[in-house]
Amino acid sequence: MSGIVETLKRDLGDRVLTDPEALAAHQRDTWVLGELRALEGTLPAPPAAVVEPESTEEVAQVLRRCREAGAAVVPFGGGSGVCGAIEPGADAIVLSTRRLTGLVAFDPVDGTARFRAGTNGLEAEERIQKEGFTIGHWPQSIALSTVGGWVATRAAGQYSTAYGNIEDLLVAVEAVLPDGRVIRTRETPRAAAGPDLRQLFLGSEGTLGVVTEVTLAVRPQPEASRGQSLHFPDFDAGLEAIRRFVQADWCPPVVRLYDGRESQRHFRPACPSGRHMLIALHEGPAARVELELEAVARVARELGGEASDPGLVDHWLETRNQVPSFRSLLDQGLIVDTIEVAATWSRIGEVYRRVLDSLGEVPSLLAASAHSSHSYRTGTNLYFTFVAKPDDPTERANVYRDCWRRTLEATHAAGGGIAHHHGVGRVRRARLADELGETGVSLLRELKAALDPDGLLNPGNLLPDVDAPRSS
Amino acid sequence: MSGIVETLKRDLGDRVLTDPEALAAHQRDTWVLGELRALEGTLPAPPAAVVEPESTEEVAQVLRRCREAGAAVVPFGGGSGVCGAIEPGADAIVLSTRRLTGLVAFDPVDGTARFRAGTNGLEAEERIQKEGFTIGHWPQSIALSTVGGWVATRAAGQYSTAYGNIEDLLVAVEAVLPDGRVIRTRETPRAAAGPDLRQLFLGSEGTLGVVTEVTLAVRPQPEASRGQSLHFPDFDAGLEAIRRFVQADWCPPVVRLYDGRESQRHFRPACPSGRHMLIALHEGPAARVELELEAVARVARELGGEASDPGLVDHWLETRNQVPSFRSLLDQGLIVDTIEVAATWSRIGEVYRRVLDSLGEVPSLLAASAHSSHSYRTGTNLYFTFVAKPDDPTERANVYRDCWRRTLEATHAAGGGIAHHHGVGRVRRARLADELGETGVSLLRELKAALDPDGLLNPGNLLPDVDAPRSS
Repeated sequence: MSGIVETLKRDLGDRVLTDPEALAAHQRDTWVLGELRALEGTLPAPPAAVVEPESTEEVAQVLRRCREAGAAVVPFGGGSGVCGAIEPGADAIVLSTRRLTGLVAFDPVDGTARFRAGTNGLEAEERIQKEGFTIGHWPQSIALSTVGGWVATRAAGQYSTAYGNIEDLLVAVEAVLPDGRVIRTRETPRAAAGPDLRQLFLGSEGTLGVVTEVTLAVRPQPEASRGQSLHFPDFDAGLEAIRRFVQADWCPPVVRLYDGRESQRHFRPACPSGRHMLIALHEGPAARVELELEAVARVARELGGEASDPGLVDHWLETRNQVPSFRSLLDQGLIVDTIEVAATWSRIGEVYRRVLDSLGEVPSLLAASAHSSHSYRTGTNLYFTFVAKPDDPTERANVYRDCWRRTLEATHAAGGGIAHHHGVGRVRRARLADELGETGVSLLRELKAALDPDGLLNPGNLLPDVDAPRSS
Repeated sequence: MSGIVETLKRDLGDRVLTDPEALAAHQRDTWVLGELRALEGTLPAPPAAVVEPESTEEVAQVLRRCREAGAAVVPFGGGSGVCGAIEPGADAIVLSTRRLTGLVAFDPVDGTARFRAGTNGLEAEERIQKEGFTIGHWPQSIALSTVGGWVATRAAGQYSTAYGNIEDLLVAVEAVLPDGRVIRTRETPRAAAGPDLRQLFLGSEGTLGVVTEVTLAVRPQPEASRGQSLHFPDFDAGLEAIRRFVQADWCPPVVRLYDGRESQRHFRPACPSGRHMLIALHEGPAARVELELEAVARVARELGGEASDPGLVDHWLETRNQVPSFRSLLDQGLIVDTIEVAATWSRIGEVYRRVLDSLGEVPSLLAASAHSSHSYRTGTNLYFTFVAKPDDPTERANVYRDCWRRTLEATHAAGGGIAHHHGVGRVRRARLADELGETGVSLLRELKAALDPDGLLNPGNLLPDVDAPRSS
């Protein structure tokens, strides 16, 4: 690797970092298993170097150089991913987008904003809010993630039920292909001109190219915004309420239903024990907000929903992105993670029960719970949280894998999809066929081979190993 | 070709057609240049055979047989395409989906309907309406096209401004790859599990696989439905009104703005001369329909819009799919076509002017006009119609190509996208780089080579010839 590092230093000078702090900071993402390995001293070696190109042309140059040298390249945005997509090891160069930042173009007539890929999500949102607009994409990681990372991971935001996920907000993308060619899709509102090439990069997780610019559709800040909260006698009743009002074409941006355990965790004392809390945030023209709020409340009442304190929504808005660090939990001997899955309405209740039943068999489990946070006409997601504390803390990685296996197997057995919005990374890749089918995985492998014949972009991520058993 | 035809006959018996009527009926789609060539006796030869598989497995078998024999295969749905995607010639087998019909599964809880690909569009809609639902996808060709064709051509429907286009309605797809493998994507409402593989088949125009089943999201029939019509002092004012109400998050399913010429053609005497008519259809919960209707009217009034007879919307609903046949127009010595393009709001007015200016220079032009029929937050489409009558009727193909060249060049020069919803076919393929960029075309070519290394699926369609000049 020393040859390629020297070559890159000739090109980029001191924007090629090899000091231990820089290498350690790009050794992994925010996957809890990476955190655990760091604690246990079992992390793979740091990367050979971190490069910080300042332009698309420099990104292309880095990729060309690495291809000539046969060196692997791992694109790195905010490092906030939680699935282990970043694990370069000593044989790879990390390509950081941290110097590719800023708003390149903003058009208030078209409602479009073009950012360089490394722009921090919250800074992007705040920049657009200064213009009286909002992106409306609020992943919990917004303060840590980048707009390019949103595309590369196929991110979802908390306002998705009305505003859609990143694939619905993405107008155009610029990306550098593994051989250094630059592709820019056009800012056309819609085209029937062959397959949509933006889709190759949405969810590519660094394996098919490096996203360098992102044009997003932005929206004027809404005239009105009102929250409400309601609690239900059981989780199924809450899910059924969401199904009914979404299918009746009432789509508040935020719709979140917490099971009894999570309702007690987040909404005590407003939520009585055994009740399941739903919070909704309604936005848009003021008169429509009133109509929508009342329509949602009416559906909820039909299913045993009782109105609660609307101030809970403000509380949620203020605290929504405050989560304890994995490190603080590991320090308590715990192993914790969240697993998001999805299913159609007719299957989602069964997914909920089967997953919790299976997790309940883990001897060291302390708690497992779920909420629904992204709803669609045909179904919704479930966001499971599990906490376990094995007597022997060195057993945590095994317990972790067992909880993941149980959650994905139970979801698949109940007809659900195993990946809603965190992506695949290393934690799900052995089970990718559960979502895509064996032919789908083969097809994705063929796309990868077509774009990256030498397999140099983020090797070991997203795709399962060839001939690996599905349950490995 | 006789060897492969015999092989297919052994497999499929009398579902391999070689009689002249069947071959002639699958020789082309509804492209007006094909119609003109038929009239002039210059059509390429008919296909070697038409096969009518009855199952996905039979489709796979046909593709495997053709691959072994090195024979080209052209998938054929309703034959209603207007861009020349179907032109098999004597060296190809046409694979018709006409025996792959019917509703396979309907789920009123999830709001999903799975059809075999050859199901006629209107029959699909009527079948779902019997259940109290609607697909809400209304291409003008609905009575002629198939649900599989909607996916393969990336179709748009008249209700798209609220309900989206086919890519927004598609839950899952089953397709047979060129080598006979069958891919089925899952009916998961959303997944972050690599690039969305459905997108490979949306707009593939028969070049990457054969769509065999389509699962669509359906919606309950709306509680209320109300139309309104308003006319504007100029076309730009009408466009600006649409921009404002769509960006304010008012999205009626149908929003159509006709320029002065088309307003006189369709809405005389309700529309005064020189005025530009907008019709809107509002659907959904009754109270919201009233709010939306009034909000749209209010925005329209700010821009000089004056209310007209709402009965015009009913008239449009009744007559919307009645268009004169190309043949009847050709018989009058005319050459006529429609060309749909798109642009962001800030560019669309310039696209309109430049295209009409350029078409106005065609000596034999009788009329050119446009309407907007599919609006988005960031822009809208324009649907141009031109009519010319050269003194020498044998000049019609040349005049036709000139009108197309002018329209696409002017659109591109004004920053628009050259293909909104009819697809690429043969009429646009030489200019595909205007939409995708040169790198995008190369990338699409590489995807094609990865999936169909022998180039046997619909050769000559969608992609430009290698090394062809862009303007050919």
